[in-house]
Amino acid sequence: MANKPSIPKGTRDFSPAEMAKRNYIFDTIRSAFYMYGFQPIETPSMENLSTLLGKYGEEGDKLLFKVLNSGNFLHGADLPQQGEGATDEMEPARLNRLAAQLCEKGLRYDLTVPFARFVVMHSDELTFPFKRFQMQPVWRADRPQKGRYREFYQCDADIVGTDSLLCETDLVQLLDTVFSKFGIRVCIKINNRKILSGIAEVIGQADKIVEITVAIDKLDKIGIDGVNAELREKGLPEEAVAKLQPIILCSGDNSEKLATIRTFLSGSEVGEKGIEETEFILNSVERLGLANAVEFDLTLARGLNYYTGAIFEVKALDVEIGSISGGGRYDNLTGIFGMPGVSGVGISFGADRIYDVLNQLNLYPSDTTAGTKVLFVNFGSAESSYCLPLVAQLRRAGIATELYPNSAKMKKQMSFANEHRIPYVVIVGETEMTTGKLTLKDMETGEQSLLSIEEITSRLA
Amino acid sequence: MANKPSIPKGTRDFSPAEMAKRNYIFDTIRSAFYMYGFQPIETPSMENLSTLLGKYGEEGDKLLFKVLNSGNFLHGADLPQQGEGATDEMEPARLNRLAAQLCEKGLRYDLTVPFARFVVMHSDELTFPFKRFQMQPVWRADRPQKGRYREFYQCDADIVGTDSLLCETDLVQLLDTVFSKFGIRVCIKINNRKILSGIAEVIGQADKIVEITVAIDKLDKIGIDGVNAELREKGLPEEAVAKLQPIILCSGDNSEKLATIRTFLSGSEVGEKGIEETEFILNSVERLGLANAVEFDLTLARGLNYYTGAIFEVKALDVEIGSISGGGRYDNLTGIFGMPGVSGVGISFGADRIYDVLNQLNLYPSDTTAGTKVLFVNFGSAESSYCLPLVAQLRRAGIATELYPNSAKMKKQMSFANEHRIPYVVIVGETEMTTGKLTLKDMETGEQSLLSIEEITSRLA
Repeated sequence: MANKPSIPKGTRDFSPAEMAKRNYIFDTIRSAFYMYGFQPIETPSMENLSTLLGKYGEEGDKLLFKVLNSGNFLHGADLPQQGEGATDEMEPARLNRLAAQLCEKGLRYDLTVPFARFVVMHSDELTFPFKRFQMQPVWRADRPQKGRYREFYQCDADIVGTDSLLCETDLVQLLDTVFSKFGIRVCIKINNRKILSGIAEVIGQADKIVEITVAIDKLDKIGIDGVNAELREKGLPEEAVAKLQPIILCSGDNSEKLATIRTFLSGSEVGEKGIEETEFILNSVERLGLANAVEFDLTLARGLNYYTGAIFEVKALDVEIGSISGGGRYDNLTGIFGMPGVSGVGISFGADRIYDVLNQLNLYPSDTTAGTKVLFVNFGSAESSYCLPLVAQLRRAGIATELYPNSAKMKKQMSFANEHRIPYVVIVGETEMTTGKLTLKDMETGEQSLLSIEEITSRLA
Repeated sequence: MANKPSIPKGTRDFSPAEMAKRNYIFDTIRSAFYMYGFQPIETPSMENLSTLLGKYGEEGDKLLFKVLNSGNFLHGADLPQQGEGATDEMEPARLNRLAAQLCEKGLRYDLTVPFARFVVMHSDELTFPFKRFQMQPVWRADRPQKGRYREFYQCDADIVGTDSLLCETDLVQLLDTVFSKFGIRVCIKINNRKILSGIAEVIGQADKIVEITVAIDKLDKIGIDGVNAELREKGLPEEAVAKLQPIILCSGDNSEKLATIRTFLSGSEVGEKGIEETEFILNSVERLGLANAVEFDLTLARGLNYYTGAIFEVKALDVEIGSISGGGRYDNLTGIFGMPGVSGVGISFGADRIYDVLNQLNLYPSDTTAGTKVLFVNFGSAESSYCLPLVAQLRRAGIATELYPNSAKMKKQMSFANEHRIPYVVIVGETEMTTGKLTLKDMETGEQSLLSIEEITSRLA
């Protein structure tokens, strides 16, 4: 007898009940994408490794799943020779070189790089600005842990081929629309890479922008002294740290914070541009009156080596969890594939975290798991033969209907209906076959009615 | 400048126009699955190689995409040593052994084996009979060619945990429902493994069942003499070949063919069971009056080493193409994973071939590519600012709406609307902002009307 089978760590099976919830999430996001004028595309699960390598940093390269070449995968591989040392002590660079010889394809790591590749490959067929959405799984060889999987879905919407700030305005509205539909109260945080660049410039530390934002981002956790200590540790001179204090302590509502920073950034061209962009977006969405708060947050610095303008992040207010959505503008998406000058802006929804939030807050609509609506009980061959055309009739009327396949005990068939949450059962025995009036049982109330198939159809359709 | 990027051979990008058609196919099949009481599940793209290997025959094993282990993939690998010969001349068995050391995971090859694995792993949580559908990509390292891809979707529906023939009846109806919805005229072919076994038994050649059916399947191509020659070549004694003639030449309508075979099989227990099963299914669906013909076809022998009862296949009548759907009953789905006695029956829709058929016959509904319904023209910052709340209002009413992001030339914006087949354009200039009456242009007729946003909403909603 074989061992009980298992699945690779960090991957998941989804049962019908889980699928119903996940489809509710995907359907809600997809409808909003369409409503805002985004069109779907799909790209292959496997990309050439040359497309993927070097796009996610050194750490990302390590997390790529690589697919062994078909046929003789050793062909041309520079295998370790005797005397080269034990294979267990192979240097990482040597291993990477060998992996690149054994594998020419890898699994998609995110949807952004494949999208950039798509835009470059199909630029002749596309009309810009191009608004696409994409909802597909991605794979990362991360160490699996609670809430982190090796296969998970990303749901991305991007607009490329224009630097209009109306796109950012649209995306903030889209975030608001989606989370309002879910009933999840959120704070939509917004920042701008140009503001952060301006700050680094003003204190004369343009090359330290990453270190500065990483340190500022820790204010909540380590306090002002901790932030200052980290800044010094990262090599900022005392003068620069001192100059930075109003920024680290910047507080108030959006316009107060922007006023503080505007003063600070006075004279920095890039910084002033960042302020201008942020004000345009905030003013536009404020006039529209969104359901959720939009907050300017200077400490928001996600994906900094990537974004060039606006940066977005969404936090759920009623659940302790990381960000459930994020995005931003990148001015050179397709540059990595030799097509410069294409500006884009996008957002990504984290389906798995949204799933957890909806579960914790119990926000799924009551009909989320709706499946079969009517089960015909099976009393034997004469009865089931009588039922077949009736079942077909209900299905033609758009009512999801099943006939229990065996003439099992009534109790078993009823418990099948209960476990599948089928709300109605039709019972057809000898009397019903004679009179043509079928017994319709409402499984919630227990109420039974004698009805013709036409009456059942019009009651349940 | 980087080289123009590409995708792995045998894989595809799908544009918005292709996605619209594909989604029409998937949505149609999915709705029918739900209507017949099937519930969705999903399994991981990667399975342990131990789950996949040995399930698809030797040829199938070769076509599995294997995923290189993360980290030091050489750990424990028995690499070829000097003196073992050039790696280009490695024996297949040696290569397979090494691949199994470098890779412990592989990409899903079909949906059936992962489903069997799912049923065994989750048997405690499932209520049988269990009706599931699954629509996910599978991967095969086949040589790419026209219409054959290395990544493609399968759409499967199966019922497991019962041997009731009502399931077969249901699946034939489901095939009829789906192809009727598509408007594709088909012939649904049905056969039964037990009949084929009975025939082999009657002529005393039980171990030659595969060879016999393969030969009979070629009748159309090579004629009766060719079939007989092949049978002799495969080692059938002359007496058996002679005995088989009524079967090879069996013709007429379903009941005539069944009558011929019934006589032939008289006394063969398994054969008579096959006749009985086939008659039940044919009689049941005949009484229901399907839209498409159901034909008993003795030469239908797909997946013979797999199916144990009914075998289905669907052929399109108006297009020269292979089968566009198929399936059958398998009595021991989960036996490979140590759980015997679970009978199942299922069908699979070939989305790619259906796509080709719908294209060739031009059967897509006219609204298949429907995307954005309204485009607001952008004349500048004052106008676009005025338009933002109007755009939001239409979206709230469920009308997919976009504002062109830049104040580009009118001609460019109009051609954007044309290329995206957006049926309505709203033009808001100074006059419109003053009067509150907006210009709505019907892009098909060219007709323009002056309307309030409420009037536009109610006209387009």
